[in-house]
Amino acid sequence: MLPATIEWKEGRLLLLDQRQLPSRTEYVSCESAEETARAIENMTVRGAPAIGVAAAYGLVLALKGEDFAAAARRLAGTRPTAVNLFWAIRRMEALWRANEDKNKDELYLIMEKEAKNIHDEDIEINKSIGRFGQEILPEKGAAITHCNAGALATAGYGTALGVFRAAAEAGKEIKIYADETRPRLQGSLLTAYELQRDGFDVTVITDSMAAFLMSRVKIDAAVTGADRVAMNGDAANKIGTYSLAIAAKRHGVPFYIAAPLSTFDAGCASGEDIPIEERGGGEVRAVGGVEVVPEEIKVWNPAFDVTPNELITGIITERGIIRAPFAENIKKFFPGRKR
Amino acid sequence: MLPATIEWKEGRLLLLDQRQLPSRTEYVSCESAEETARAIENMTVRGAPAIGVAAAYGLVLALKGEDFAAAARRLAGTRPTAVNLFWAIRRMEALWRANEDKNKDELYLIMEKEAKNIHDEDIEINKSIGRFGQEILPEKGAAITHCNAGALATAGYGTALGVFRAAAEAGKEIKIYADETRPRLQGSLLTAYELQRDGFDVTVITDSMAAFLMSRVKIDAAVTGADRVAMNGDAANKIGTYSLAIAAKRHGVPFYIAAPLSTFDAGCASGEDIPIEERGGGEVRAVGGVEVVPEEIKVWNPAFDVTPNELITGIITERGIIRAPFAENIKKFFPGRKR
Repeated sequence: MLPATIEWKEGRLLLLDQRQLPSRTEYVSCESAEETARAIENMTVRGAPAIGVAAAYGLVLALKGEDFAAAARRLAGTRPTAVNLFWAIRRMEALWRANEDKNKDELYLIMEKEAKNIHDEDIEINKSIGRFGQEILPEKGAAITHCNAGALATAGYGTALGVFRAAAEAGKEIKIYADETRPRLQGSLLTAYELQRDGFDVTVITDSMAAFLMSRVKIDAAVTGADRVAMNGDAANKIGTYSLAIAAKRHGVPFYIAAPLSTFDAGCASGEDIPIEERGGGEVRAVGGVEVVPEEIKVWNPAFDVTPNELITGIITERGIIRAPFAENIKKFFPGRKR
Repeated sequence: MLPATIEWKEGRLLLLDQRQLPSRTEYVSCESAEETARAIENMTVRGAPAIGVAAAYGLVLALKGEDFAAAARRLAGTRPTAVNLFWAIRRMEALWRANEDKNKDELYLIMEKEAKNIHDEDIEINKSIGRFGQEILPEKGAAITHCNAGALATAGYGTALGVFRAAAEAGKEIKIYADETRPRLQGSLLTAYELQRDGFDVTVITDSMAAFLMSRVKIDAAVTGADRVAMNGDAANKIGTYSLAIAAKRHGVPFYIAAPLSTFDAGCASGEDIPIEERGGGEVRAVGGVEVVPEEIKVWNPAFDVTPNELITGIITERGIIRAPFAENIKKFFPGRKR
């Protein structure tokens, strides 16, 4: 069994420290919104759905004495690309405003219940993504994924890895190739660990090998998560996803995004509207404390990239797979939303 | 000044230990063909032209007491992909056979002179590649390269990096992006080091960032070396080159191979005929001694990939740039060769 990514225990938020995996299983305890914000920033917790859940609990913690609006701003300022973060904060804020007249204890219970709902819903959503998604996979075959869109990136089960889990539950035999995902190596350290523990046949490759792999081995699908999807289907995800999608296109390998509907941003007409986080160069400069780029040399470290919709075969959501024409079909999933 | 990659001093072969760069500048001394073979295998010396030169000197060392034919076989068995190795060995073997009747000392001097010629010619060839190649670059712009096809991969000056050096000598201002080149990080550890020492504006990115970089920044050319070029222009080079070439094609970035004519293999009609070395998984599993893939998880480690000719804008050689149709135009460069 995988350790839980996020636990809410007696009014404290426990986050599995993903920076220590797979060698150590340790939890970081957060007792305020500020501590939660720091844990999101330093990637103790990562993965778009998981940071949404963490932020929701962070806003419950804020009720213990922090200024709520300031706490919401602080949490929203932690990471710019994953939109689930803002979605969860907005949902908690709306409930807070609707219940401002309640007494402190009542408000706390209402807010705590909502955060738990977001947490529980995320697992259900992932299982539903898995059920729809596993149909893209053959009875026996191979797939490739990038970064970690697994149980560790969500409240549990995973989006992209949830698709593989659902396929395995349906009796399918899918060999998984995991890109190591430089600079932070979430593929080697988290995805491979997760899948191996669940009994998958998993092989790690460097990001640079994916295209060559596709030229030598039949790959049935590439499946990744997403941090934000624009209303035309362009998708931001971990740096390297775009490169994988280009290679998949060249080799006729279907490329799928697996992401909950909370990942879609009605405020982004296309990928050009998605802000891309640039992180400190230290992640490129060193691996596990070992320097690989001398200090005097410049590095560039965008944490995400944007895969344009024409490279995407389908977006697997909890309500079904969205296919081209994306702008038109995405709209059907958000009937009430203004553009 | 960069330290010399290869030196021949008083009958000993001194190889700059590239595994220690950039933190330490140390030389490994080889006094036999066997020691030379080991240094090629363990990548003390690497880069197709450089291992060709090293093998030539290794065959001079063999004359001190090893069985010459066995030494030639041993050296030829070190690494399968770079064809310059076999080219240099064949050239030395032919001379050895033509002079078998000479006495030992005479033969040694003849062979030593030939190895020195191969060494000196390589620098001249690189400078000529640079002169032809720099014309593809604008007065001011940006280029990207993969792995290390620099002074350290050759007898000096470099093939791909020689193109950048020649551009700088012609007064051009070219900003260079260097892919880090997992698994062995020749881009961060060797290319960035080389170019920084020579005063270039160089930025290291992870391999997974190259495609996204091209979508955000105008890149005027991608230039890499090659370990073997087939007679139809398909080129084997460090793993990740193919991925870079696919991304370049998508973004309309001209993709060039810079390689001496000794890199062409008349025995390979196409890339399918080029043997691809698979190295031990340790290179993927660990970075500088730090484990990044848990032991129980499988890895795949092809050291090279093949870029098909339709992704290549031109092959820059010491006698000019070869462009499509490649099969036809390559033939013109090898008029005497049987197919």
